[in-house]
Amino acid sequence: MLGAGGFIGTNLCRSLVMQGHTVRAFGRRQSFPEMLRGCDWIQGDFADPASLANSISSCDVVFHLVNATTPASANVDKIADLNANVASSLYLLDACRETGVNRIVFVSSGGTIYGIPDQVPTPETASTNPITAYGISKLAIEKYLGLYEYLHHLDYRVLRVANPFGPYQTALKNQGVIAAFVRRALAGQPIEMWGDGSVIRDYIYIDDVVEALILAATHQGPSRIFNIGSGEGRSLNNIVASIARLLEVDIPVERRPARPVDVPVSILDTTLALKDLAWQPNTQFEEGLRATVAWMKTIQGNV
Amino acid sequence: MLGAGGFIGTNLCRSLVMQGHTVRAFGRRQSFPEMLRGCDWIQGDFADPASLANSISSCDVVFHLVNATTPASANVDKIADLNANVASSLYLLDACRETGVNRIVFVSSGGTIYGIPDQVPTPETASTNPITAYGISKLAIEKYLGLYEYLHHLDYRVLRVANPFGPYQTALKNQGVIAAFVRRALAGQPIEMWGDGSVIRDYIYIDDVVEALILAATHQGPSRIFNIGSGEGRSLNNIVASIARLLEVDIPVERRPARPVDVPVSILDTTLALKDLAWQPNTQFEEGLRATVAWMKTIQGNV
Repeated sequence: MLGAGGFIGTNLCRSLVMQGHTVRAFGRRQSFPEMLRGCDWIQGDFADPASLANSISSCDVVFHLVNATTPASANVDKIADLNANVASSLYLLDACRETGVNRIVFVSSGGTIYGIPDQVPTPETASTNPITAYGISKLAIEKYLGLYEYLHHLDYRVLRVANPFGPYQTALKNQGVIAAFVRRALAGQPIEMWGDGSVIRDYIYIDDVVEALILAATHQGPSRIFNIGSGEGRSLNNIVASIARLLEVDIPVERRPARPVDVPVSILDTTLALKDLAWQPNTQFEEGLRATVAWMKTIQGNV
Repeated sequence: MLGAGGFIGTNLCRSLVMQGHTVRAFGRRQSFPEMLRGCDWIQGDFADPASLANSISSCDVVFHLVNATTPASANVDKIADLNANVASSLYLLDACRETGVNRIVFVSSGGTIYGIPDQVPTPETASTNPITAYGISKLAIEKYLGLYEYLHHLDYRVLRVANPFGPYQTALKNQGVIAAFVRRALAGQPIEMWGDGSVIRDYIYIDDVVEALILAATHQGPSRIFNIGSGEGRSLNNIVASIARLLEVDIPVERRPARPVDVPVSILDTTLALKDLAWQPNTQFEEGLRATVAWMKTIQGNV
């Protein structure tokens, strides 16, 4: 598993180990080492082809969870984003081919790959015109996965994951508004918000994402790309209100200018995942938010 | 104009100069220097950001005609293809932004960008799943053009050109089957053909491509991406038969194994170009082939 020390990786490692799988976990650092207990941890940089090849040798399934950039940072240096994400993924695909990996499961970006959507909720077949280099990189990697399957019979599945949230999301990399908002609210600090708060996203609880990843690892059938989201849209203002309600506090909001990287609305149509993966989101938003707050309280001040 | 010394560039330079435009022509080498007379020629490498920026300063429209690879070579080293085409194009886009270029006209690949088509003839809205890294690079550049327009108001048009042919195509870079076939037939050599010759392509005469490029430079309207092809499909066997008929010779064919890079059929739907650019192909295939043969006879033995 590549990018195993991050938010999704940490949760996925734990689930796989609990299910009795042998997991090799590769990443730059472990945010929560105790969560990766039972994994074979390899410290390394995704941009280093040698350590990459070493990390996947004799693996059956490779989970590619690496995000070397964020939607906002990718636009600042698009060439760095291209190298860190796309070129490195090409090294990975070559290594997978050479070492006989059976399948790659790649986490793509349901929130950025479509750009400003023609259809809402957005199905996998919608047009893909990202307004951030981050989304273009994800799209290019998806296309290379298709190419490697065609040329080299390397099997793959792509999950276009909406905005995941839940325990072990730290908001340190400027990703994850729910983590960032809860963190500040618990610290009694005002929330910083880009734009007027009307931006709508599809928030999906991490346990549901992990379940989809595990299903994607063994899925049989012709579909390759699946949207993974709640299918429901929530505004930033709505998120703040939910947190305030849960914590029983007033949360002051400091408004910043809207960012061009933010599409106004992103809600995924997950009909295909239900049909082909027998997957559906099981965690209600408020329930996921409660679990997130409960976890964040346990680490408050430590991360 | 970037890639001005190549096949399309040579023809486009000549037309623009004849129409009285001021043309700065940038490229690694001029295959036919006499055709670029009247242009301001700058020798340089597309992969060198400094010479690139210099080549476009004070230009109104930039034509991006560079192919640093071919469909077959791109698959051999996908990372080199990514760097040479996509990363270099990002440098170009940044340079265009900084120097205040008004519009980029980019030549994309109608023959590879769709992959194995769901629809034939294939419209611009069809899905894009290239089976060569060459097509993925072209697609990524198209997406970055969309991003730069969104973020930085850099105007652009994309022409997804089918298989162009005509005078000044030399077949030296292993591109252009008609040039390669005519050349060998005129030299009394057998034609080398990958596969059984049933592969169908859409061949478009260069004068029609040049006309579309010039129209794209000033087009007003919301469309950004246009297919440019004849709308007709011809098999390789059909091409050989046409050349044999024209030259009144028998042409022996040496068959090579089919290449995975070749989609079985590629025919473009050019309805949008007719509607929005008022463009349509004007040169009948046999007429274009005659002009190509006539030109090739004049340079026989010299290139």
